[in-house]
Amino acid sequence: MPPERPSSAYPECVTRLIEEFGRLPGIGRRSAERLAFFVLKSNELDAMRLAQAVIDVKRRIRHCSTCWNLTDADPCPICRSEGRDASTVLVVEQPKDLISLEQTGMYRGVYHVLMGRLDPLEGVGADSLTLKDLVRRVSDPAANARGIAVREVILGMNPDMEGESTGLQVGAEMARLGVRVTRLARGLPAGGQIEYASKAVLADAIECRQEL
Amino acid sequence: MPPERPSSAYPECVTRLIEEFGRLPGIGRRSAERLAFFVLKSNELDAMRLAQAVIDVKRRIRHCSTCWNLTDADPCPICRSEGRDASTVLVVEQPKDLISLEQTGMYRGVYHVLMGRLDPLEGVGADSLTLKDLVRRVSDPAANARGIAVREVILGMNPDMEGESTGLQVGAEMARLGVRVTRLARGLPAGGQIEYASKAVLADAIECRQEL
Repeated sequence: MPPERPSSAYPECVTRLIEEFGRLPGIGRRSAERLAFFVLKSNELDAMRLAQAVIDVKRRIRHCSTCWNLTDADPCPICRSEGRDASTVLVVEQPKDLISLEQTGMYRGVYHVLMGRLDPLEGVGADSLTLKDLVRRVSDPAANARGIAVREVILGMNPDMEGESTGLQVGAEMARLGVRVTRLARGLPAGGQIEYASKAVLADAIECRQEL
Repeated sequence: MPPERPSSAYPECVTRLIEEFGRLPGIGRRSAERLAFFVLKSNELDAMRLAQAVIDVKRRIRHCSTCWNLTDADPCPICRSEGRDASTVLVVEQPKDLISLEQTGMYRGVYHVLMGRLDPLEGVGADSLTLKDLVRRVSDPAANARGIAVREVILGMNPDMEGESTGLQVGAEMARLGVRVTRLARGLPAGGQIEYASKAVLADAIECRQEL
């Protein structure tokens, strides 16, 4: 007979599921238990769909070899699309940023995902980013989406210190290659109130004031 | 060529993973996205472990045929254990309640999980619960853990209205079968403060006052 499990424990595979859920960001011990019990109670098909979705994402999703966007086809639909202006490249830190910008429906160019930001304190230098690939895209049209020459690079880093310094470095590299370099506008957030805006926001709003 | 996906969308399998995470309790759209990106970023082995844990739980976990506890072996380790007093049965609503009680390490009897509570407004009557199985265990020692006759049934429902009425009905059935019926003590929660205790708690504390 196998040695008896302490009766205070969950069955081993329930414990394991609780641990696995607990590894996810923002999921504490109690939430992990709640999720595990939800899976235990849910019908088998639903649980299998969750498991399969995790597996599929890991099996199918790759980075686009041109822009590093997440994709299940390479090049990604944005780099492939005839309807996009491949001469304009918006540089972002993360695939998430790309998604947010895409959801506005306002941008018709292509992207380049740096896969991070410069953070010397954390040991993240330019080599850990995809800056080299961006340089290649800008220097050699063949490396860019649909073989089109890049004419403008828009810096779309987060408006904070690391984003700022990443932008400076990327901007300097791009300027050296002779393309137009712009950055996303800074200023008052639409829907906000001047009364509650931070000093940095107001400073941007004044300094970057726009012609009517 | 397949019709082009709207470029504002995630790749299909990422969307699906976000949806699956979003089905879990307490996980909203934003959290589901965060979890999906965590899976995307995590190494393949970790993601597979999560998927496998979900699959294993659904494949291996059953209800104990005696007490309805969750288990990967039937009868469950508690019902099987020689070290437990099978003549005392603590009746709880949910497997979770059993786990909490077990974790105190204070109880040496066995359990019966009702798999719910009476809730006429939600259409949950005695037939949806495992009350019939409890009646069988109490009437027929052969149906109880290790073939031992039940002498005491402890009611361990939640101390609220539905728990109360479920307890009344279960208690009445058990009394009819001639076993001793008790319930978990009500009173002041250890570690709490009388100043902040609710009226109902204080009423219990007075009414159920215990001999020193």
